[in-house]
Amino acid sequence: MPFEKSDLNIGSRVEKKLYSGTSPFQKIAVLNLYTFGNTLVLDDIIQTTERDEFIYHEMLCQIPMFLHPSPKSVLIVGGGDGGSLEEVLKHASVKKAIMVEIDGKVVEVSKKYLPSISKNAFQDKRAALIIGDGKKFIKDHQNEFDVIILDLSDPAGPATDLISLSFYRNCKKALKKNGIVSVQSGSFTTQPELVSLISNRLQKVFSHVEVRKAVVPSYQAGEYTFTLASDFNFSKVSQSVLIKKLKKAKHMRLKYWSPDIHWASSVLPSYLKEELK
Amino acid sequence: MPFEKSDLNIGSRVEKKLYSGTSPFQKIAVLNLYTFGNTLVLDDIIQTTERDEFIYHEMLCQIPMFLHPSPKSVLIVGGGDGGSLEEVLKHASVKKAIMVEIDGKVVEVSKKYLPSISKNAFQDKRAALIIGDGKKFIKDHQNEFDVIILDLSDPAGPATDLISLSFYRNCKKALKKNGIVSVQSGSFTTQPELVSLISNRLQKVFSHVEVRKAVVPSYQAGEYTFTLASDFNFSKVSQSVLIKKLKKAKHMRLKYWSPDIHWASSVLPSYLKEELK
Repeated sequence: MPFEKSDLNIGSRVEKKLYSGTSPFQKIAVLNLYTFGNTLVLDDIIQTTERDEFIYHEMLCQIPMFLHPSPKSVLIVGGGDGGSLEEVLKHASVKKAIMVEIDGKVVEVSKKYLPSISKNAFQDKRAALIIGDGKKFIKDHQNEFDVIILDLSDPAGPATDLISLSFYRNCKKALKKNGIVSVQSGSFTTQPELVSLISNRLQKVFSHVEVRKAVVPSYQAGEYTFTLASDFNFSKVSQSVLIKKLKKAKHMRLKYWSPDIHWASSVLPSYLKEELK
Repeated sequence: MPFEKSDLNIGSRVEKKLYSGTSPFQKIAVLNLYTFGNTLVLDDIIQTTERDEFIYHEMLCQIPMFLHPSPKSVLIVGGGDGGSLEEVLKHASVKKAIMVEIDGKVVEVSKKYLPSISKNAFQDKRAALIIGDGKKFIKDHQNEFDVIILDLSDPAGPATDLISLSFYRNCKKALKKNGIVSVQSGSFTTQPELVSLISNRLQKVFSHVEVRKAVVPSYQAGEYTFTLASDFNFSKVSQSVLIKKLKKAKHMRLKYWSPDIHWASSVLPSYLKEELK
């Protein structure tokens, strides 16, 4: 039984409303929150904040990037704030990172009000930004990506179709052999059915699926999850391999992910294991 | 820099106010919350709820109880709801569990409105309830306890003095050789200075101090912490010993703590390690 977020009255002091508008896809706002700094809000749900975006983006992106032996070609679906693009481009192995975001307004607003999240990622020569439908893009591409990051809002609004079995099948086709897909999969604490649903569907398509969790304070949603799926048995990548890789990657200055966190974030208490069944 | 809880506007739909009163020590309320069931609130801060009390109580009590080779004599300071007493008494090794709670009204109200938390603990022949000052009690007892559980409210109100260096020194004297003290030590996310302060003070008194964390949804405070301190090097207790012990303890039906959680809950991301320095 979930702890229902919809019932919780949650907020943080708004210092300033920096932007408020409507795109063809959703309501978009940028608030400056006393606790979290500049904050992107889509359809009234906090997506990312200057203060704790690193937790979400490192968990979503660095896990598949470090597990893959050598990710060269990366696709990000969604991720309009540019935070995932920035994480992915930290890896020198990456030759091409394509970001397909349906809502150009989100990119524009994020660049203006949340530049610390994307940093210089959009100017990187390896980056390509496509404003368009990620679902269609994935259908049109096969055997092309080492890593796919699904940096989507919750499945309401523009992301509704992007948790379907057929979409996951197309993701698999778009991946190269042994490619990995990484999915933001909701909160274990407040949306356990969603976590389960995503995990179960991915298991129908990929031979290896694992859920990891982290606390993202601005979401105020307890244990937030990130689900990895691949036909590559990434659970066999040893701690010592990850430790070696991270040593060479000190310049990345990661603030959340580490080989220890990698292991620890996969351990669930029994009451949550029950929810996943 | 902490994520300031004081700034967050947090609540959960109140279905019914079951009790509201004032003791000589604090304001006491019991609310029925839609999300969390019956909930004990002291001085306007949620202390425990029917729905998620097991997370807090297992982390606070089962860690020292499983780490200690054979806990016979246990002292609980605070813990008026009886949840810690119930956890401790699950262990057949326990001959005597003394609970010293300053506020008799909290015990009375908890027995009436939150009986699922203490279950039959107060009726257990091994249990002794003392309504009195834990600080004084500890000062008057030496070399007596295998485990001391400090199940206190935040250091404001009646618990203010119970994070002092002199109190921790007296805890050490009250412990038998190799005894362990377990302390609820606040939220890493919203009270990192408190977590640090408690940890640093305990380090001045005990040779081994470790912080563990868990998400307690009703606290809505991110990573909540539990700090262990002892002159016994409990970090050397192996996973295999804990796994063996838990196998024998299946009847306890723990819903949160496990040997894997034991290890995983000690792993901190680098940004929190920085806070602890």
